[in-house]
Amino acid sequence: MSTDSKISKLFSTIDDLKPSFIDRLSKAVSIKSVSGDETLRPEVFKMATFLKDELIKLDATDVQLKDLGIQPPPVSISNLPLPPIVLAKFGNDPQKKTLLIYGHADVQPAQIEDGWNSDPFTLVVDEENDKLIGRGSTDDKGPVMGWLNVIEAHKKLGIALPVNLICCFEGMEESGSLGLDQLIKDEAKGYFKNTNDVCISDNYWLGTKKPVLTYGLRGCNYYQIIVKGPGADLHSGIFGGCIAEPMTDLIQIMSTLVDNKGNILIPGIKEMVAPVTETEEKLYEEIEFDVDELNAASGSKTSLFSSKKDILMHRWRYPSLSLHGIEGAFSGSGAKTVIPSKVIGKFSIRTVPNIDSNKLTKLVIEFVNRKFKELNSLNECKCELIHDGDYWVSDPFNKSFRAASKATKKVWGVEPDFTREGGSIPITLTFENELKSNVLLLPMGKGDDGAHSINEKLNISNYIQGTKTLCAYLHYYGESE
Amino acid sequence: MSTDSKISKLFSTIDDLKPSFIDRLSKAVSIKSVSGDETLRPEVFKMATFLKDELIKLDATDVQLKDLGIQPPPVSISNLPLPPIVLAKFGNDPQKKTLLIYGHADVQPAQIEDGWNSDPFTLVVDEENDKLIGRGSTDDKGPVMGWLNVIEAHKKLGIALPVNLICCFEGMEESGSLGLDQLIKDEAKGYFKNTNDVCISDNYWLGTKKPVLTYGLRGCNYYQIIVKGPGADLHSGIFGGCIAEPMTDLIQIMSTLVDNKGNILIPGIKEMVAPVTETEEKLYEEIEFDVDELNAASGSKTSLFSSKKDILMHRWRYPSLSLHGIEGAFSGSGAKTVIPSKVIGKFSIRTVPNIDSNKLTKLVIEFVNRKFKELNSLNECKCELIHDGDYWVSDPFNKSFRAASKATKKVWGVEPDFTREGGSIPITLTFENELKSNVLLLPMGKGDDGAHSINEKLNISNYIQGTKTLCAYLHYYGESE
Repeated sequence: MSTDSKISKLFSTIDDLKPSFIDRLSKAVSIKSVSGDETLRPEVFKMATFLKDELIKLDATDVQLKDLGIQPPPVSISNLPLPPIVLAKFGNDPQKKTLLIYGHADVQPAQIEDGWNSDPFTLVVDEENDKLIGRGSTDDKGPVMGWLNVIEAHKKLGIALPVNLICCFEGMEESGSLGLDQLIKDEAKGYFKNTNDVCISDNYWLGTKKPVLTYGLRGCNYYQIIVKGPGADLHSGIFGGCIAEPMTDLIQIMSTLVDNKGNILIPGIKEMVAPVTETEEKLYEEIEFDVDELNAASGSKTSLFSSKKDILMHRWRYPSLSLHGIEGAFSGSGAKTVIPSKVIGKFSIRTVPNIDSNKLTKLVIEFVNRKFKELNSLNECKCELIHDGDYWVSDPFNKSFRAASKATKKVWGVEPDFTREGGSIPITLTFENELKSNVLLLPMGKGDDGAHSINEKLNISNYIQGTKTLCAYLHYYGESE
Repeated sequence: MSTDSKISKLFSTIDDLKPSFIDRLSKAVSIKSVSGDETLRPEVFKMATFLKDELIKLDATDVQLKDLGIQPPPVSISNLPLPPIVLAKFGNDPQKKTLLIYGHADVQPAQIEDGWNSDPFTLVVDEENDKLIGRGSTDDKGPVMGWLNVIEAHKKLGIALPVNLICCFEGMEESGSLGLDQLIKDEAKGYFKNTNDVCISDNYWLGTKKPVLTYGLRGCNYYQIIVKGPGADLHSGIFGGCIAEPMTDLIQIMSTLVDNKGNILIPGIKEMVAPVTETEEKLYEEIEFDVDELNAASGSKTSLFSSKKDILMHRWRYPSLSLHGIEGAFSGSGAKTVIPSKVIGKFSIRTVPNIDSNKLTKLVIEFVNRKFKELNSLNECKCELIHDGDYWVSDPFNKSFRAASKATKKVWGVEPDFTREGGSIPITLTFENELKSNVLLLPMGKGDDGAHSINEKLNISNYIQGTKTLCAYLHYYGESE
């Protein structure tokens, strides 16, 4: 049977299996696998078991839950076990290429009180609006289920997978992929031996109309500033005006990190950014995107730039600093007249070539310490890195990218745009370095999916066509020279 | 029977009833009557019913739960009913003076996660350390139970109360006493007719050693700054650097309100503060207090001043501004890479003579609007008053204060210090103005009780001796000319 006729049968089977594929995603979304919430750690474990069971049902071999030990500090719950990494293999034919597929089954925090229109952990199937709504639908449970769907379609038709597959699904991606780096190093010559290429489906189209393949990512360094003073929270009537309030110090320091035009005010960072080349500048012109798509995705007219090039450059190739929030301060609705005794400001910096993570952390901590010293405060202050993950840039014309490009054309009828991304998948670089292989980023969802946000969705059509794209990619990649 | 022998019998009975008095407070603390948490509103209603039942058991007449209608905006839950005010009378003898006693049965928010050593809503009776620990123990369920205890002791001995008592217990004090102002106005010539004086037990000793009577309070104006931009929370990788982030604007604005030495930076406020007179300056010298007591109470060495006079002046007669927190931003532990779409900064200003509340609000809103305009932001910003309550200063030598001074001497063996307070009891002024009567503040707890803080406590001795003080005060006040 020719590759094209195999693909044709597989596509038809994928269409037939749509209800059961949606059911699979629905089960995955119902597990509250929030890796950043330590109290929900048992749910992340439950998610690993769910994946293991699914993989075994699909005839995977050598399925393992790799124990990663105890989560290193800072943690609130002591002796907190890291969730295991799920490993599985399909096929072991020396005549075939070996592809490692990576995804994550943990999600960002979500509560209906955040503004969701429905319970975040109950998948809403909205056929009318072509949407699957729920936490993790697009990031990254949808794509992970997509891989399982592809394997199921092959199994149903009795068609052999065109490559040897190694699955690597983790549960800490939203919290710095703790433990995964070490596992990849440890298994480079073990479980992951013979890996030719790596495919990750964990990002999104740039906009909402045109599929993309992604060859670059920003990194992410996440920091916290801890300011503490009084032994306990205090009444602002009794103590206000008499004592040094930690919130005042923290707000002063946080106000010096970034201006509201997006300029990072910490000296020395800008100087590390790679200069823009002429070739690079031209790249932006060909990509389908405009400010209206950014505004549609953000649900506002808050774009800092009006030109496509400026927006894409600031998303892809310049660093950014976001202030995320404050732990320990009053955060409820209404009014509470408290002076918080210990407050922890959270911010992250998205990194790009050629920012060195260690040097960045040194600059950040020195800057915060200097600003705190200038305040001449009676409180104590400490700035620390919570986690970091490097940026990544690849060659978009290698055989894996060419196969993915052909698959995209086959399913969507258009050539994909070649893009970079503002977000981070810190592990991409580790895969390349440790497995001496190339990584392809093959996204399933659209730019307006709302990953990390309320009402996160994956279009039903993207889930099904995306599954087909992964399927065709395997075959084109498998037969490539 | 002479007043002194009545008081003597009553004191002895109060000692005998100690276990049942502690049990009464324990029941009150177990009700989670947090007025600032809209979801707990049914508990505030439950607390009103508890008080009503207790009052009826003590033979109160004309017990009423006064409906105050729906809570005005800003609220999160629409059609949220205000908790009722509990009214009750004891005696109606035209030969006796009529004293109105006021207290509140709502409390500040509390969760064990805030750092409590025990469940905040289960009263811990720690005889060894002389402590009753629980939310509301000192603020203000302890003192309210104290009044009930006094009435019970009289009932048990068959001794008539020396005054006609009108009880007025509310459930919104920690949230701006919404509805109480209007009720007092409405009932000034109704339920509250013939009130000669008002006694409020809802503050604390200055330190931990010497009882005080309080003749002045700061007011409190509570504000929020709402900054909104994107339609929903966004992924900081995808949108960081490209859009105007509301948190950046809010932190910038909040950083301009106050410096970390406690100086309010909003122009025009300092100018409204009454100048210090020579007489006033001397007053501070006689009061028993020092910086060590402030540090002990705050559990730190974060006092902005080293002299007693500076501390007391900044607590009592100068305004202060505290930054309480941010609603809508990430507030959990760990790391969440979110750009919050709508953030609400909370701060309050403690007011003093002669700051006009309306003028202050105008200055604050104008200042915030100007600062936001200077940012030239793409987001939207609104500053609004959540609630205000005026400052209050009284004559510490009127007959009510003299009776309380004598009662304090009787119970504690020392003359009380005459103090002002940094905190606010906004309704004090309304009682004076509407009922044309004087208010006395007669505190029960100590300066280190931790009202509004974690591990809030009332010393067992203060609960019992405080009950005796309220009791003796009634008799000395009743017989005063």
